[in-house]
Amino acid sequence: MATKKKYEYWMGFDLGGTKMMATVFDAKFKIKGFHRTKTKGHEGAKEVLARMLETIEEALGQARIQASELGAIGVGCPGPLDLDRGIILHAPNLGWRNVHLKDTLERVFHCPTTIANDVDVGTFGEYRFGAAQGARCALGVFPGTGIGGACVYEGHLLRGTIGSCMEIGHIKIQAEGRLCGCGQRGCLETTASRLAISADAAAAAYRGEAPHLLKLAGTDLRQIKSGVLARAIDEGDKVVEVIVRNAAHQLGAAMAGVVNLLAPDVVVLGGGLVEAMPEIYLQEVRSAVQSLSMKPFVKGLKVVAARLGDNAGVMGAAALAAEAAVK
Amino acid sequence: MATKKKYEYWMGFDLGGTKMMATVFDAKFKIKGFHRTKTKGHEGAKEVLARMLETIEEALGQARIQASELGAIGVGCPGPLDLDRGIILHAPNLGWRNVHLKDTLERVFHCPTTIANDVDVGTFGEYRFGAAQGARCALGVFPGTGIGGACVYEGHLLRGTIGSCMEIGHIKIQAEGRLCGCGQRGCLETTASRLAISADAAAAAYRGEAPHLLKLAGTDLRQIKSGVLARAIDEGDKVVEVIVRNAAHQLGAAMAGVVNLLAPDVVVLGGGLVEAMPEIYLQEVRSAVQSLSMKPFVKGLKVVAARLGDNAGVMGAAALAAEAAVK
Repeated sequence: MATKKKYEYWMGFDLGGTKMMATVFDAKFKIKGFHRTKTKGHEGAKEVLARMLETIEEALGQARIQASELGAIGVGCPGPLDLDRGIILHAPNLGWRNVHLKDTLERVFHCPTTIANDVDVGTFGEYRFGAAQGARCALGVFPGTGIGGACVYEGHLLRGTIGSCMEIGHIKIQAEGRLCGCGQRGCLETTASRLAISADAAAAAYRGEAPHLLKLAGTDLRQIKSGVLARAIDEGDKVVEVIVRNAAHQLGAAMAGVVNLLAPDVVVLGGGLVEAMPEIYLQEVRSAVQSLSMKPFVKGLKVVAARLGDNAGVMGAAALAAEAAVK
Repeated sequence: MATKKKYEYWMGFDLGGTKMMATVFDAKFKIKGFHRTKTKGHEGAKEVLARMLETIEEALGQARIQASELGAIGVGCPGPLDLDRGIILHAPNLGWRNVHLKDTLERVFHCPTTIANDVDVGTFGEYRFGAAQGARCALGVFPGTGIGGACVYEGHLLRGTIGSCMEIGHIKIQAEGRLCGCGQRGCLETTASRLAISADAAAAAYRGEAPHLLKLAGTDLRQIKSGVLARAIDEGDKVVEVIVRNAAHQLGAAMAGVVNLLAPDVVVLGGGLVEAMPEIYLQEVRSAVQSLSMKPFVKGLKVVAARLGDNAGVMGAAALAAEAAVK
């Protein structure tokens, strides 16, 4: 589906594991309206899809425009995806398999729809509107529950044949390391993800080495989120800081290898951990990349924090859909 | 420098550490003439440059054409390079620093000239004419004295801002591994390059575990080249086979990580070691990639041997220069 009219509005949609957000942008990518709500993936595919449609309608209503005025809809979503056919192949958090998202949204709103991986749209958003503007090659790294990566190379997201690529979280950093969710051992995620950090911090709390963390969140990984880790450090839990710094260093060391491969001019760090503790992440990743990457690739390389927060995803998704629509 | 005439001929040039080769191609990239000679880098920059010009003249003479009939000249050379300005920044084997190769050749032959990294042109040659034809994303890996890598993504070589990228040899595979020529520790090259293999094999020969190798080449790394290693294995030196297989496995394990990042549809293995022992390399790299890469990226992925041998470089260089000239 492609239209030839002059576009006034674009929609970006962020389908997250815990919340979803729809945002209407004008032609200059100024926000005209938005709506967010909880995803409630446990309620099942049909309910989540219905809630997506409602959320889009709400955002349109807030912007006081009709779906017919949209040039395109872009959706950032968890993967694996079939990008060209617009299918979510599998999203465990949503209980989804083979959901034809593009077709559904195009049928309901009569508007060209593009879906893309959530880390890809976040990085593309930072490239178009945030911390990586003008980069020839921008690497996005989002340490969170897992560790997502993306690369905008000369204006385009690097992608695989069917879905996305840049699985930075599954770079092997230790030959016989911890078991990873992907089935391998020693992947970066097993040491540097929020989950890995929380597990190490919980063990420290259990051993009595992190009294503030223990008081704030106990030893349950579900409670030990990025903000809690930051607060425990602020309150004086040195061991938590050491754990986070070590994870950030490991992330930087793995990025140093990616820098040697792709020679980016900007590395953008985003996601919950970085938002909660930007100084630690910038320091550790910068020093690891500086000392471990090959010299020609370090010259002029910037390591920066993402600037758009939650808006990166919807902005990137909308911009990606806009590019696909006017192509 | 760019011309608008209809092109009849292209020249590819391969400037190697030990030999150089110039080849004239017609518009269909059939070879019309070529000349090769020793590089003799020890004689110094001026002599090597003069020999390059002679070699080009010889190839033109053999093809019975004038330089004025060339659409462009492409040169594959050792780096680091300044690609846009066509400068070899540093080539230790040639004793070169800041040699303005593009300007020099354009002044002498009045013909647009493109320079590129030798591994890049080899991979581009395999993509255009050899084992990776039609690939959406082709990864080239050339284990030799070092380990070179390159990636053709949707028709274009991935590159850095100034020079090439894809330094696969400097992926860290061991936290506290052997010292690498780049100054880091545990780079892939320290375990899987021809030099690393030769060092391990020489030690085995010294210990009396590789009698055939000892007879063939002694314990001098300069003598233990790829062909000698292959012959020692054929003659029954089991330990040499184990050493090579281990190196090939390490290469494959590192490639598995690159596959997770770039999701190629073809991995092309080339260079002296692979040419001497293709079965070992294909087996070990295939099995490592299959078992260590994430499943979605393995589906449909081919691991193949390069097909063009020494011609990959000149063909790729000529094709790259042709694309730049008609752009």
